[in-house]
Amino acid sequence: MQPTLLSLPPVPSIDRSLAGSLRAKVDGKAKPPGSLGRIEDLAIRLGLIQGTTEPRADRATLLVFAADHGLVEEGVSAYPQAVTAAMVRTFLAGRGTANAFARAVGAEVRIVDAGVAADLAPHPDLIDRRIRRGTRNAAREAALLENELDAALAFGAELAADAADAGADVIVLGEMGIGNTASASLLMHRLLPAPLETCIGAGAGHDAAGLARKREALARAAARSGATEPREVLREFGGLEIAMMAGATIGAAARRRAVLVDGFIASAAALAAIRLEPAVRDYCIFAHCSAERGHAALLEGIAADPLLELGLRLGEGTGGLLALPLLRAACGLLREVASLDEVLSGAA
Amino acid sequence: MQPTLLSLPPVPSIDRSLAGSLRAKVDGKAKPPGSLGRIEDLAIRLGLIQGTTEPRADRATLLVFAADHGLVEEGVSAYPQAVTAAMVRTFLAGRGTANAFARAVGAEVRIVDAGVAADLAPHPDLIDRRIRRGTRNAAREAALLENELDAALAFGAELAADAADAGADVIVLGEMGIGNTASASLLMHRLLPAPLETCIGAGAGHDAAGLARKREALARAAARSGATEPREVLREFGGLEIAMMAGATIGAAARRRAVLVDGFIASAAALAAIRLEPAVRDYCIFAHCSAERGHAALLEGIAADPLLELGLRLGEGTGGLLALPLLRAACGLLREVASLDEVLSGAA
Repeated sequence: MQPTLLSLPPVPSIDRSLAGSLRAKVDGKAKPPGSLGRIEDLAIRLGLIQGTTEPRADRATLLVFAADHGLVEEGVSAYPQAVTAAMVRTFLAGRGTANAFARAVGAEVRIVDAGVAADLAPHPDLIDRRIRRGTRNAAREAALLENELDAALAFGAELAADAADAGADVIVLGEMGIGNTASASLLMHRLLPAPLETCIGAGAGHDAAGLARKREALARAAARSGATEPREVLREFGGLEIAMMAGATIGAAARRRAVLVDGFIASAAALAAIRLEPAVRDYCIFAHCSAERGHAALLEGIAADPLLELGLRLGEGTGGLLALPLLRAACGLLREVASLDEVLSGAA
Repeated sequence: MQPTLLSLPPVPSIDRSLAGSLRAKVDGKAKPPGSLGRIEDLAIRLGLIQGTTEPRADRATLLVFAADHGLVEEGVSAYPQAVTAAMVRTFLAGRGTANAFARAVGAEVRIVDAGVAADLAPHPDLIDRRIRRGTRNAAREAALLENELDAALAFGAELAADAADAGADVIVLGEMGIGNTASASLLMHRLLPAPLETCIGAGAGHDAAGLARKREALARAAARSGATEPREVLREFGGLEIAMMAGATIGAAARRRAVLVDGFIASAAALAAIRLEPAVRDYCIFAHCSAERGHAALLEGIAADPLLELGLRLGEGTGGLLALPLLRAACGLLREVASLDEVLSGAA
């Protein structure tokens, strides 16, 4: 039996009664019906999410959750664990790709230490929600204890709700964590579900030997626990940043904010959130299909049709940020564009 | 023999010697090599276009060229000709989709009357380059006289150069003109070249009878002239806004500015520009693959791999605008993101 998530806020179901007036408003704009393709669908989705025919996507906050993974002991990543902390410092200096892309599209960035396995100096822009210094090694034991998982989910939900309350119209979720494609593959395997083999890719970069090592380690982790219930799967396989992103997905949806989901890891977190609370599915907008093996199948498994396909596989929320202007354009269509009636009557 | 284009500025060839240092700079950034996919390629292209490892796409100007088409007498469009002028007025009121999308992504909009067949009140934001009130009916006679075509090309080149000189890093080209998919189909047919049938789509919207009427009219136009030389093709089939966009493509490239090409009609204009001056090809960035039949084949015919696929078929430069943030992200990657060396040495 699935435990009640006492600490997580309730997610309102989408009220679909607005769909007709949203469709009529889009169709009545000064353009041939259907001529804006997916932007029209996006406009309607954003209207339904926000419960209005005048949705907004002006202010967006990217939350980047960083944490480490005990699984790296098994050689599942091509990069050393110290890179996680080094990248957090780079984000705080404003010099990560996520920072540059956020400036390019006009979004705020907040960096969350969800469980980095290194000392990080306090910084005014660093939100310290470190639960432990990385997860345990999931190939040998459960990655998290129950109370650690509860805390991660609750912190994530709270941070997304805080961002919404501070004025964010859209929440973009990103991550940094050496080894986290390994956790994400295990989550996909159990929660989609899908054969483990199809869930494993090269991550940040692996040669054939590295990929074989990753496959073998994940097979051991999978053999260790037969978990299929979402909380149990998160507890067994981690990671802290993924659980916090799942919580953030729920927290954003609870505030009726669209969640712009980035790549493979963010999608695995969204999948976990959907399995924990199916009502969040309607709030998730999948930004892009990444080049990481498994992502396309994950998206297909939850009937998600991503907006972009640019061969990205970096994470950090970078793909989510690149889709943000499409949401703003969709809102602009509903809010600002004249109707055909106005144009033909000379009122526009 | 192709006439010398005395009135058009020379387009510098891209100096590819910078490609190696651009690739090295991208590869040295704090991310797995290749992990930003097409954004990396875009960064290198923009660096080559601007001749620097620190390209910019901060300021962008959308030029919307509006004109009418004599071909509408043949029933080639589902909309009445008066819509062209009505939409120009809507753009000037800031209420077109192009205006809303330009605000969403942060671009300037300039509206050019290239040959609208209606009275337009003077407006401070309307650039009057009207050559005549619409083209002649290309199903019966040449759409333009030689001096009209020369003027359209020269005006377009001048307006793009002016926008560049006023500070635009990127030129986005858009159009409005009832009937202009018909002209664009004829241009594609002769300049790609491709069988006429594969170049004709529903445009702004046609039922089966409307589409049959359009096919028949374009077959008559094609039968009337065997032109294949680019100036001759533009003169025979028009339109004024398309010729001006072709000139603008050349004018932007002459100033080493990237041209963000919108949908089917803008791509037909880019094709004409490429056939007039092959060096412009390297400056053209194709924003999206539209839902208009023929666009995919046109893009394939010039080896263009569009950035977006969103089912758009509106024109106005809307698809070009939606791709602009990708160019900015690519520049941000080159200009702002720390190198891996900086991150690992703690210097970032």
